[in-house]
Amino acid sequence: MDYSFSNRIAALQPSIIREILKATSGQNVIPFSAGNPAPETFPIEAIRTFTQSILEHDPVTALQYGITEGYAPLRQALTTHLNTGFNTGQESDELFIVSGAQQGIELACKVFCNEGDTIICESPSFIGSLNTFRAAGAKLVGVPMETDGMDIEKLEHALQTEQNVKLIYVIPSFQNPTGITTSEEKRKAIYDLAKKYGVMILEDNPYGELRFKGQDVPTIKSMDDEGLIIYVGSFSKILSAGLRVGYVLAPYEVVQKMVVAKQGEDVHTAMLPQILAYKFMAEYDYDSHIDSIRTIYHRKSALMIEQLNQHMGDRITFTQPEGGLFLWCDLPHQVPMLEYAKTAAAQGVAVVPGTAFLVDESEPCNAIRLNFSTPSDEQIVKGIQILGQVLDSYK
Amino acid sequence: MDYSFSNRIAALQPSIIREILKATSGQNVIPFSAGNPAPETFPIEAIRTFTQSILEHDPVTALQYGITEGYAPLRQALTTHLNTGFNTGQESDELFIVSGAQQGIELACKVFCNEGDTIICESPSFIGSLNTFRAAGAKLVGVPMETDGMDIEKLEHALQTEQNVKLIYVIPSFQNPTGITTSEEKRKAIYDLAKKYGVMILEDNPYGELRFKGQDVPTIKSMDDEGLIIYVGSFSKILSAGLRVGYVLAPYEVVQKMVVAKQGEDVHTAMLPQILAYKFMAEYDYDSHIDSIRTIYHRKSALMIEQLNQHMGDRITFTQPEGGLFLWCDLPHQVPMLEYAKTAAAQGVAVVPGTAFLVDESEPCNAIRLNFSTPSDEQIVKGIQILGQVLDSYK
Repeated sequence: MDYSFSNRIAALQPSIIREILKATSGQNVIPFSAGNPAPETFPIEAIRTFTQSILEHDPVTALQYGITEGYAPLRQALTTHLNTGFNTGQESDELFIVSGAQQGIELACKVFCNEGDTIICESPSFIGSLNTFRAAGAKLVGVPMETDGMDIEKLEHALQTEQNVKLIYVIPSFQNPTGITTSEEKRKAIYDLAKKYGVMILEDNPYGELRFKGQDVPTIKSMDDEGLIIYVGSFSKILSAGLRVGYVLAPYEVVQKMVVAKQGEDVHTAMLPQILAYKFMAEYDYDSHIDSIRTIYHRKSALMIEQLNQHMGDRITFTQPEGGLFLWCDLPHQVPMLEYAKTAAAQGVAVVPGTAFLVDESEPCNAIRLNFSTPSDEQIVKGIQILGQVLDSYK
Repeated sequence: MDYSFSNRIAALQPSIIREILKATSGQNVIPFSAGNPAPETFPIEAIRTFTQSILEHDPVTALQYGITEGYAPLRQALTTHLNTGFNTGQESDELFIVSGAQQGIELACKVFCNEGDTIICESPSFIGSLNTFRAAGAKLVGVPMETDGMDIEKLEHALQTEQNVKLIYVIPSFQNPTGITTSEEKRKAIYDLAKKYGVMILEDNPYGELRFKGQDVPTIKSMDDEGLIIYVGSFSKILSAGLRVGYVLAPYEVVQKMVVAKQGEDVHTAMLPQILAYKFMAEYDYDSHIDSIRTIYHRKSALMIEQLNQHMGDRITFTQPEGGLFLWCDLPHQVPMLEYAKTAAAQGVAVVPGTAFLVDESEPCNAIRLNFSTPSDEQIVKGIQILGQVLDSYK
């Protein structure tokens, strides 16, 4: 059989990161390439207790079909959490549950974009989202990242010149892959431009609570007095990635459409994980848990930065993130980045070539993304040492 | 903000069934409208034990990111199960895990259909799938159901006359909504036509193991010597609907594309539910469990049929399913079906108007769908009595 795939799908390639993750999983590779939360951040004992309690007291709710919008107590707890903790969410907004933030991003695209419509993205940006947009047949337009967020002039230029712009996609806090946090000033500027040009903002904030340095910056959604923003959050980095529970806060009318689209994808998010997420919010010391994750990632990022300074500090530049899981490391211009990444992999250290995150992968890029949440402290020390040795070979 | 939704989404309506389910959930309504498995079929005690064991011995696998294709031991167990139990699956096929069968159906559509391409469906058919196809912008062409499956002549006519037919969608065993099982002869005829016209078959088999009467009929996939069939199965009716675990068996090349599309939707299916499904297959008395479900549904369907005969047998006709969850009930032609369903709902009995399942909802239809898995025995007796009384009012 000679298969005739749909136009949008025929050209797609598997995500480089997920392919690397597959290739390196379960082996003795030092995983600077992943985006996994540190396993020691999973509240395993609490999850055991909560699961036992759920299956003891209300097993049928956990095992039976639920409604597409999600488990009502979890929706309520999240709505309150965003309102009181982050001043985020208006009367006219609604919150529903998705099977990981990725689904929220995909649904936003499905609901707003016809094939050929334009999505403006930070460049570099999260490859999973970029591939989702590509799979929907959207045209991606990248706006370069500066140290405090998107280049606002270039964003306005794109809004002025591009046809059928439907979404501006931003990861404002501790961005994947760069670790950059968009300043409050730029957040306001992005919001004002969205308002001026009548374009929706897709605000992806999976790492928002994982600040371990500096001052909190308001979400863009907290500025949303016109119903322009679809805000997507996740339990993947604060409870468990494998449970696949995320959420979307957006204007009611938008949520109605996204829920219908979700019905057609997976009917609803798995119930047991949703109830677990609810108990985690309602019955656990949520704030202490978040604090403990911050402490772990602060230590790991500081260790990675210290090692980078020690072994390569004179030759490379890198972001110093105030939270999240990643830092972005620019190699000296004479080092061929792809070859460097391959050599490092051959020596047992997996990093992701920066090109993977570009809107246009053929643009020049001499950076690699380093993840500090997945490797152990020992792996960080050993891995950066090896990366330094590989760099030495290009002297 | 005046939202400009994508063309495909702008026209979509929420599923009637899911709206009814929402409206009637948690109330004193007798639920002949749902498609929920009977809660007494959930192996709750085993799920408790397995969950405890998973979170004791391998919590990190259950809580960390997994690969998009799914949990390897589960994929292997299912591949073996389909091979040895159902002679289904070739060397050239591959199996991967989805977040419920609905996702498998949606991915098949996404991978093969451009907007405007045609999908041939049984009519009536499962509303969830029809809405998924509609949300993808596909053109639906219905082929009427006969007592032993699709009208083969009309199927061939559709294949001859319709443009860009990409999929033939069939639920060959205990179809939702009719309860009809497609005969072996017709399965062969459908397969031969798919081969002749070079069209893929999407075989949706969520109820396949729930036969409580008559003889097993081979899956269409078991006849697939040309790589034409995407076979979708589910744990929803045999383990738990709320865990959202299903699977797809299809030619390797097709699976590669579906997996890339799944990456962009939810990255992977929740891990804890996948490992639970694996343990259910590997460590539980699977066959006895299936037998016990069959016994329950045999009893419930027989009770519903007995009550229908007693209260309305002289005035209505209905299918006598050999398995599954549903029967299809034709009202006398002078009874206005939609009004009948509304009156029944007002009297506390929820049924689904047959029109909801038609490819063209404006076609004449005087049938309702009755589900016998969700209501208790007492509810079946009381509910059918009420349905009979409502019918009396049209004498």
